[in-house]
Amino acid sequence: MARDSSATKARLLDAALSEFAAHGIAGARVDRIAEAAEANKRLIYVYFGNKEQLFDHVMQRALEAGAESVPFDTADLPGYAGAIFDHLTGRPELIRLVAWKQLERPAATPEQRTAYAAKTDALAAAQHAGQIDAAFEPSDILTFVLALSQAWFAAAGDPALAPDGSPWSEQRRAAHRAAVVEAVRRLTAPPSQHG
Amino acid sequence: MARDSSATKARLLDAALSEFAAHGIAGARVDRIAEAAEANKRLIYVYFGNKEQLFDHVMQRALEAGAESVPFDTADLPGYAGAIFDHLTGRPELIRLVAWKQLERPAATPEQRTAYAAKTDALAAAQHAGQIDAAFEPSDILTFVLALSQAWFAAAGDPALAPDGSPWSEQRRAAHRAAVVEAVRRLTAPPSQHG
Repeated sequence: MARDSSATKARLLDAALSEFAAHGIAGARVDRIAEAAEANKRLIYVYFGNKEQLFDHVMQRALEAGAESVPFDTADLPGYAGAIFDHLTGRPELIRLVAWKQLERPAATPEQRTAYAAKTDALAAAQHAGQIDAAFEPSDILTFVLALSQAWFAAAGDPALAPDGSPWSEQRRAAHRAAVVEAVRRLTAPPSQHG
Repeated sequence: MARDSSATKARLLDAALSEFAAHGIAGARVDRIAEAAEANKRLIYVYFGNKEQLFDHVMQRALEAGAESVPFDTADLPGYAGAIFDHLTGRPELIRLVAWKQLERPAATPEQRTAYAAKTDALAAAQHAGQIDAAFEPSDILTFVLALSQAWFAAAGDPALAPDGSPWSEQRRAAHRAAVVEAVRRLTAPPSQHG
């Protein structure tokens, strides 16, 4: 039974991710999630709580999957930014999930606060060790690195940025990725590596 | 009568901005906009068209007001970024409007395409004249400068980034602004001004 319930939970969370990415929290319908997951609607409440709590579960699962694919690495912040860029390529639902969170549920969960503090602490230690330029506060560095990694995807729905309306060619994708990596290098390289 | 209709249009657009910022396009209610503007609902269709077209009008008006307050200046991109930061301070409805657009109406209007092309053309000319580092493509520069200018506001609803949950002090605001300006300087200064 434990295996069945774990499979049902995973199906519900997958279906909820699609539903939230498409419609946001207010627009999401629990019936549609249950139907897409081929599960009883009641199980959503049993496993996850109300719709807002379900959203928190979906977001936490996406963040944990992201952290596993793209470990935070203060010794190579340009590489970290490039890896986030790769992780987001072809995953527009993640960008949408973050945008809905910002609009509809901006407060951080305790898990998100803990993950944030771990990153700024690691950045402060790397600055102290001379691995990262100390000109910026750790919170500024983290905010800028994440903004640069995501910048192209936040705008990617905008044909002004892709005049022919087609998806990026591999060449174009590689060029934007290289630009993100170089931008983060310029912001974070210790003075000895400037230039 | 012309003056009256112009005043009514302005009231409708103000009310629509608040409604869209709060609820997005799908969630916005034309009745509430008419009521808040103390105008007849029918006038919205007469003046602006359907709800999506009304959103385009609201967005275009916000972009034009922004461009008037913060002129694009290739001769001082760090100052431009700082001015955007100032313009967004205390205007969370603008950040929300951009996020809703990204989620619900990502296609650029002809006006937005024209404004975008004018900026990338100006950046290319400034690179050619040696005013801006030529390492990045104009579209990368524009995307990064806008992302850095807005980075703190996109995250500002997140208490993980303001542990005490209070609004920024003037000192904290000034420190983040200075970081944004310095970040843009590092990305765009021509090689002779690095360091």
